[in-house]
Amino acid sequence: MSIRDKKITIIGSGNVGFHLGKRLFEMGFSIYQVFSRNLDKATRLATAIDAHPINQLNQITDQSDIYIIAVKDVGIGRVAHVLSESVGNQKIVVHTSGATSSELISKYFDNYGVFYPLQTFSIEQEVDFEQIPFCIDAKSPEVKETLLELANYLSPKVYRISDRERQILHVAAVFVNNFTNHLYSVGEDILEKEKINFDILKPLIFETARKIENQRAEDMQTGPAKRGDTDTISQHMEYLDKHPEYQKLYKTLTESISKHKAK
Amino acid sequence: MSIRDKKITIIGSGNVGFHLGKRLFEMGFSIYQVFSRNLDKATRLATAIDAHPINQLNQITDQSDIYIIAVKDVGIGRVAHVLSESVGNQKIVVHTSGATSSELISKYFDNYGVFYPLQTFSIEQEVDFEQIPFCIDAKSPEVKETLLELANYLSPKVYRISDRERQILHVAAVFVNNFTNHLYSVGEDILEKEKINFDILKPLIFETARKIENQRAEDMQTGPAKRGDTDTISQHMEYLDKHPEYQKLYKTLTESISKHKAK
Repeated sequence: MSIRDKKITIIGSGNVGFHLGKRLFEMGFSIYQVFSRNLDKATRLATAIDAHPINQLNQITDQSDIYIIAVKDVGIGRVAHVLSESVGNQKIVVHTSGATSSELISKYFDNYGVFYPLQTFSIEQEVDFEQIPFCIDAKSPEVKETLLELANYLSPKVYRISDRERQILHVAAVFVNNFTNHLYSVGEDILEKEKINFDILKPLIFETARKIENQRAEDMQTGPAKRGDTDTISQHMEYLDKHPEYQKLYKTLTESISKHKAK
Repeated sequence: MSIRDKKITIIGSGNVGFHLGKRLFEMGFSIYQVFSRNLDKATRLATAIDAHPINQLNQITDQSDIYIIAVKDVGIGRVAHVLSESVGNQKIVVHTSGATSSELISKYFDNYGVFYPLQTFSIEQEVDFEQIPFCIDAKSPEVKETLLELANYLSPKVYRISDRERQILHVAAVFVNNFTNHLYSVGEDILEKEKINFDILKPLIFETARKIENQRAEDMQTGPAKRGDTDTISQHMEYLDKHPEYQKLYKTLTESISKHKAK
């Protein structure tokens, strides 16, 4: 049975389930059922990809070959438990979470795996799948092969990543994505409070990201902390007296850069 | 006298002087002299833009109309002092620094100004001037007009920014550029130590920047701190026991995001 003939059921139609379901459909896969606790959300996705919308976990049938659990991390265990009662333990069942160990589903299914798209999704924004690294794991070599093949239809960037590696990637992702975005919002807040247009900084933000495409981030470090420019650092700290929370961030990050510099 | 007939002297041929000189030449301006303490560097730029290379400040002559001081912040005062002895106090003289007050040169020149390209430059990397915001300031309206006109030849993004606003922009730029790059290098270091390919995170990094092009950064915040997902935060903190410095950053940034969330 070719990978293209396998039927897929999508459990969860949030950001990941929504974009994944649409992309699988576009690439010619048959999606059989789409589950969401919210029937409107299930229907919105199911209608777009020619699948059956359901809003009860026990409505999931055993007619698919691959079950993709794309619900919130806290719900994965319960979904796996209910799912195993409906479809048995022989189906291929994967979750799409960066933070969740595969152990949570391995106790229910022999053919479990992980199918983690390492990217930030919003339902409102179009997604460029060429730019989504898929992190694949499975215990059985056959399942791993199937998941790699499936991922290769979706994106050219496919990696075999163990549970442990995925956890570490997730820590690093928090630094480069969540924390970075927070620094953007600090800059935004500082400028908005002073009625200065944040757009002025956007080209700098894009260039900062672009520079590391082919260079080591460590080598690209610039700024007062890197130069040991204590005059500028003092001026900035003084300005930040009015934002004690940002001042604390400034101090901690400046100290960290200085330590790196000293290495 | 049209702006295009004004002769320009570039003082300093580091990252900013180099790219600015080349761009001005490409846009049809006459560059008269190029100064660098390092004659090789002066010559490299001067040759490319049909100017005279010099490596002594007192060789600067009064034949230009506009003098652009693009040396390191600490050198600006001394350059202004020597320059005023050679060219008098009536020339248009600007510096290109984000962190330096215009007062440093205002005492030497009646027609002083600031011509600050708010972008990160490296000599090795091509620069897209369309993506360089120019922050312009001058006391005299005529000088301001001249500088705005000049900047408009170089980039579509030109802003009138006062000394005070420029200082605040510089603080915000440290957050979104220097600190962000440091977070990239933290992610890079964590993964390199575990022999995981940092390239896997690059699409996420680019998307994080791209997302704020048309959205507020604050609204784009995701991740365990934003969700209040204490299980994941504890797991990450535990992993970071091996990197106490990064653990401290993780803690400080997580607390800051949580405070924002609570607002």
